[in-house]
Amino acid sequence: MVILYMKIDILTVFPKMFQGSFTESLIGKATKNSILQIKVTDIRSFSKDKHKKVDDKPFGGGVGMVLKPEPLYDAIKSLGVKKKNSSYKNFYAKPFVIYMSPQGKTLNNVLIKKLSKFKHLIFVCGHYEGIDERIINYVDEEISIGDYVLTGGEIPTMVVVDSIARMLPGVVKEESSVENDSFYNGFLDYPHYTRPAVFRGHKVPDVLLSGDHKKIDLWRKNEAYERTKKRRPDLLKRFRSSIKPEGR
Amino acid sequence: MVILYMKIDILTVFPKMFQGSFTESLIGKATKNSILQIKVTDIRSFSKDKHKKVDDKPFGGGVGMVLKPEPLYDAIKSLGVKKKNSSYKNFYAKPFVIYMSPQGKTLNNVLIKKLSKFKHLIFVCGHYEGIDERIINYVDEEISIGDYVLTGGEIPTMVVVDSIARMLPGVVKEESSVENDSFYNGFLDYPHYTRPAVFRGHKVPDVLLSGDHKKIDLWRKNEAYERTKKRRPDLLKRFRSSIKPEGR
Repeated sequence: MVILYMKIDILTVFPKMFQGSFTESLIGKATKNSILQIKVTDIRSFSKDKHKKVDDKPFGGGVGMVLKPEPLYDAIKSLGVKKKNSSYKNFYAKPFVIYMSPQGKTLNNVLIKKLSKFKHLIFVCGHYEGIDERIINYVDEEISIGDYVLTGGEIPTMVVVDSIARMLPGVVKEESSVENDSFYNGFLDYPHYTRPAVFRGHKVPDVLLSGDHKKIDLWRKNEAYERTKKRRPDLLKRFRSSIKPEGR
Repeated sequence: MVILYMKIDILTVFPKMFQGSFTESLIGKATKNSILQIKVTDIRSFSKDKHKKVDDKPFGGGVGMVLKPEPLYDAIKSLGVKKKNSSYKNFYAKPFVIYMSPQGKTLNNVLIKKLSKFKHLIFVCGHYEGIDERIINYVDEEISIGDYVLTGGEIPTMVVVDSIARMLPGVVKEESSVENDSFYNGFLDYPHYTRPAVFRGHKVPDVLLSGDHKKIDLWRKNEAYERTKKRRPDLLKRFRSSIKPEGR
């Protein structure tokens, strides 16, 4: 029997955007197996306006629209949140509210691991120019997926949900598959090859066909190191500064 | 009349994941208006295997599966690509092939602007442990959306498509809306407020109700600066080093 490990609520003005994103592959399996429960709620259903309006012009002028505070607050409240009250230590008892925005903390594997402990996550997707700033009073963490701008928080929410879901027990079959991931050990991944051994004149590196597992392991580690050095020297620097010299 | 500005092809083993992601909001409008044409193709349809197999075990052993080179090559070739031949200067004449992977160049606004010039982009979505490395011979750029691992390249492709689409002429109505974006000027965005002026005891900053547009502009610039300084001092440093001192 599989036990529900995590509940995820997503608040959005474009619920249809999520139609296909969580039904396939590993996330699809996790939701089918009830390891993960994902519910997408239309913020519009909380609008008391007769036209179901959820946005309005910004105070102080300027282009674009801002998501109004009331429907968003009512939507968050309907999920049992009354005030900002969670911390990363409180992952079992209370839901944790995340607002996806370029102003947030940049997503990385450390943050993903912390978030994967929670039993209930709530994602608030901004759209247009963003949400009314006073909603931040009910948000536990603002998260950004990178230094670029998108049309809304919907696709970034998919990114975070996908990255967290694969950390849940039973989602990725082999634990070592997660441990071999890029960034997991501070390095980029080594190159992968599969059959045929020769494809359009390009041969698989001999060592991979040698059957010598010690050699193969060494080759892969070296490839990962050289690739990281060439493409992302910043990762190597960070990795080195995280290791304390012996004897200290 | 609106003229097709960009054609995007997406190659994936999970085409259903894209069902809702491009039909809503600004991207939905852009595709309806034919500014942007997005076509999702199942790599599986290029498999010559009777079971439509597209993955196989890695050479050299280890967990996970690798996407086989042949169906992927045939899929890319079917879109008019025979070898790696594009550069960023060649954006009009030839398609540009992108492979989404954590080993790639990190996405940012500079890269997005470069990509938004192309007439035809092809996205290759990896899945499982990734694609056979020899396919990189037909890829013009590897792109990563950030330092974290996802189950496949599908959601990262949505991120890049969304970020590029909003740069296309006619997608975001007001050009100044793009120019006010986070990161556009090296700063995070300032906070936004809309009606009501008082929401659950939280008042909108007085200055925004003053009608004094000079003061409002100054307040917003200051908020953007202070927020960047507090949350992302790394952005400020980068911004400063990009400005040459006067007189040099």
